[in-house]
Amino acid sequence: MKDFNYYSPTQVVFGRQSEEKVAELVKKYGGTKVLVHYGGGSAKKSGLLDKMLRLLDEKGISHIELGGVVPNPLLSMVYKGIDLCRKEGVDFILAVGGGSVIDSSKAIAYGACYDGDVWDFWNGKSTPQAALPIGAVLTIPAAGSEMSDSCVITKDEGLLKRGVNSDLCRCRFAIMNPERTFTLPPYQTAAGATDIMMHTMERYFSRHQDMTLTDAIAEALLRTVMNCTLDVMHDPEDYRARAQIMWAGSLSHNNLTECGLEKDFATHRLEHELSALFGVTHGAGLAAIWPSWARYMLPRHTSRFVRFAVNVMGVENDFTSPEQTAEKGIQAFETFMHRIGMPITMKEIMGREVTDEEIEIMADKCSRAGSITIGSLEKLSKKEMIEIYRLAK
Amino acid sequence: MKDFNYYSPTQVVFGRQSEEKVAELVKKYGGTKVLVHYGGGSAKKSGLLDKMLRLLDEKGISHIELGGVVPNPLLSMVYKGIDLCRKEGVDFILAVGGGSVIDSSKAIAYGACYDGDVWDFWNGKSTPQAALPIGAVLTIPAAGSEMSDSCVITKDEGLLKRGVNSDLCRCRFAIMNPERTFTLPPYQTAAGATDIMMHTMERYFSRHQDMTLTDAIAEALLRTVMNCTLDVMHDPEDYRARAQIMWAGSLSHNNLTECGLEKDFATHRLEHELSALFGVTHGAGLAAIWPSWARYMLPRHTSRFVRFAVNVMGVENDFTSPEQTAEKGIQAFETFMHRIGMPITMKEIMGREVTDEEIEIMADKCSRAGSITIGSLEKLSKKEMIEIYRLAK
Repeated sequence: MKDFNYYSPTQVVFGRQSEEKVAELVKKYGGTKVLVHYGGGSAKKSGLLDKMLRLLDEKGISHIELGGVVPNPLLSMVYKGIDLCRKEGVDFILAVGGGSVIDSSKAIAYGACYDGDVWDFWNGKSTPQAALPIGAVLTIPAAGSEMSDSCVITKDEGLLKRGVNSDLCRCRFAIMNPERTFTLPPYQTAAGATDIMMHTMERYFSRHQDMTLTDAIAEALLRTVMNCTLDVMHDPEDYRARAQIMWAGSLSHNNLTECGLEKDFATHRLEHELSALFGVTHGAGLAAIWPSWARYMLPRHTSRFVRFAVNVMGVENDFTSPEQTAEKGIQAFETFMHRIGMPITMKEIMGREVTDEEIEIMADKCSRAGSITIGSLEKLSKKEMIEIYRLAK
Repeated sequence: MKDFNYYSPTQVVFGRQSEEKVAELVKKYGGTKVLVHYGGGSAKKSGLLDKMLRLLDEKGISHIELGGVVPNPLLSMVYKGIDLCRKEGVDFILAVGGGSVIDSSKAIAYGACYDGDVWDFWNGKSTPQAALPIGAVLTIPAAGSEMSDSCVITKDEGLLKRGVNSDLCRCRFAIMNPERTFTLPPYQTAAGATDIMMHTMERYFSRHQDMTLTDAIAEALLRTVMNCTLDVMHDPEDYRARAQIMWAGSLSHNNLTECGLEKDFATHRLEHELSALFGVTHGAGLAAIWPSWARYMLPRHTSRFVRFAVNVMGVENDFTSPEQTAEKGIQAFETFMHRIGMPITMKEIMGREVTDEEIEIMADKCSRAGSITIGSLEKLSKKEMIEIYRLAK
């Protein structure tokens, strides 16, 4: 078991009435001049954005808006936000949307408190020392950014997609109304659920196998997300199921499922290159890569995959052949992914096979030209990255 | 499902090396003049107290000490601490011990920032508006006070044991080294485990039955605590098992197991009178009362008790008779309690039957002379309190 730190200070306000509290919360955390940051049209179309602005107005809280954040949020937008914050004297950022909007807000929050180029934090030239306070009104359960210390940004030039972790960017509050997710299309719902599951699984597959409470919580969470995703596929307005998925999204990435373990995140790193290069939806990319990562790992970590198969996927334990039980767990994962419309190979996303040249490009970027490894269950160098990408073709 | 707030800002530093960080953490959270508060001799005997003082000295952090906190911490000690804080200009309280020491620290933290009589907060005359920052070095996993917003104090005169809840008293940090719990005697270990389980069960038995993620987490936690308590009874130095119990103690009372539910806490309130009147160990008192509370509730909430029986206690579901399955769950709880040396009636603690007069006194105090009800699964008035106490004789 690993010694651990657990720090998750975000105030969560969850439920049907939660949005009403936005102005009160902004005020509580010191906001007087707010940048309201959002994405495409859905926050606007649904009326959520207008509602947030009206509530801020009613409490006399001054605000400006910046929309247009895209999935895999871009550095160019971050620069725009930083300029705006400086020009307007913004002291609080309200993110209205999903993980991309929240991550874009976090990057702006860092940049507004930094004299140099904010990208310095992502290319390792500097580490954040301060950030504007952020609040989130979550509309897409997936990235878990509303409670995480993570911020993933893509540099337009060269499509470099990278993450920075710091407690400074943790949201002061997160407003979550499951009703707001009723209109998410099935594909996005499924991709979100996959991302949520992977945030837990990237921690569950750890070298440490003695933190049984964290394991049991992770298994409970994974089973709940799978059941509820099937429920939501059947009835998109199933409040109970939507609520479980939404809350699981936060708990999957606020480090609760990491206590005593060591996170791996190799699948995430491999996927980042896929989505940076091809604009693939992150959750779908994870579904396409994980089974291959798992089969690559299985022979040397069989007992962990057996536990996953039995406790999460409900596979019967064939004690005579652990390998077979473990393999059945991966197959059950694939079957589940297909049931919710997710791919299990890259070809199923792209409609064609990814070429060896493209794999070389992705592995080269992922390994920063062979200079770094990824993962912790096993450290993967460029050579192993290529092998896993090939298995996932 | 209930709309909910979740706020758990305490920084947890967990593991074998965690104590080394005490001075750094006190500094981080603004402590320059520290009241080190502790209980009886065990923190001293074990060398923990000296270690903490030495580490503070090494970082040049000024401190004074106040020991002697007793189980069911007393208001008289709180007054002493408040005086000391004022006289010495204390700006941070470091609690070294278990829940009693932490609760005593919280009450001192309130009182040091309040001009009136601190007991005002417990008798409803006033609500806390400020508190000194607190850090905890936990030695007994049980009360969960290290991450909770709860503070339970007993007024010496009249033995009034009451609780106050406020986010203001949440510990800034909690240091948890499971090794420190190796020397806990079996009875205290078992009573602590019972308290931990009850913090989750008092939320699990809720009118709301649709927050399936919280339910699944609660069940995972309860099963883990039961298994690990048996492991520790066999080997008190089982680090893995001690660690699970310790972490479960925090998660049981930091509101994670309350999300979407409504806490009941009737058993706690009934037990408070028992421990106030007879000095009974809190966890043992809970074990003695819960089965009777459960049997009193069972007929009108059978499905919830069936779920508990099957998912927590491992009872086989006899679909033809839910009542019987539910009853078997309560019996399995009783069997487990006996296995770890806990009582399941008041007589088993006291060595004699509690008299009807004593029951009348406890119910009268618990209902504040018949003026309040307790519980939320069902609201219990003095009449029902007497009925449950009688069942628990």
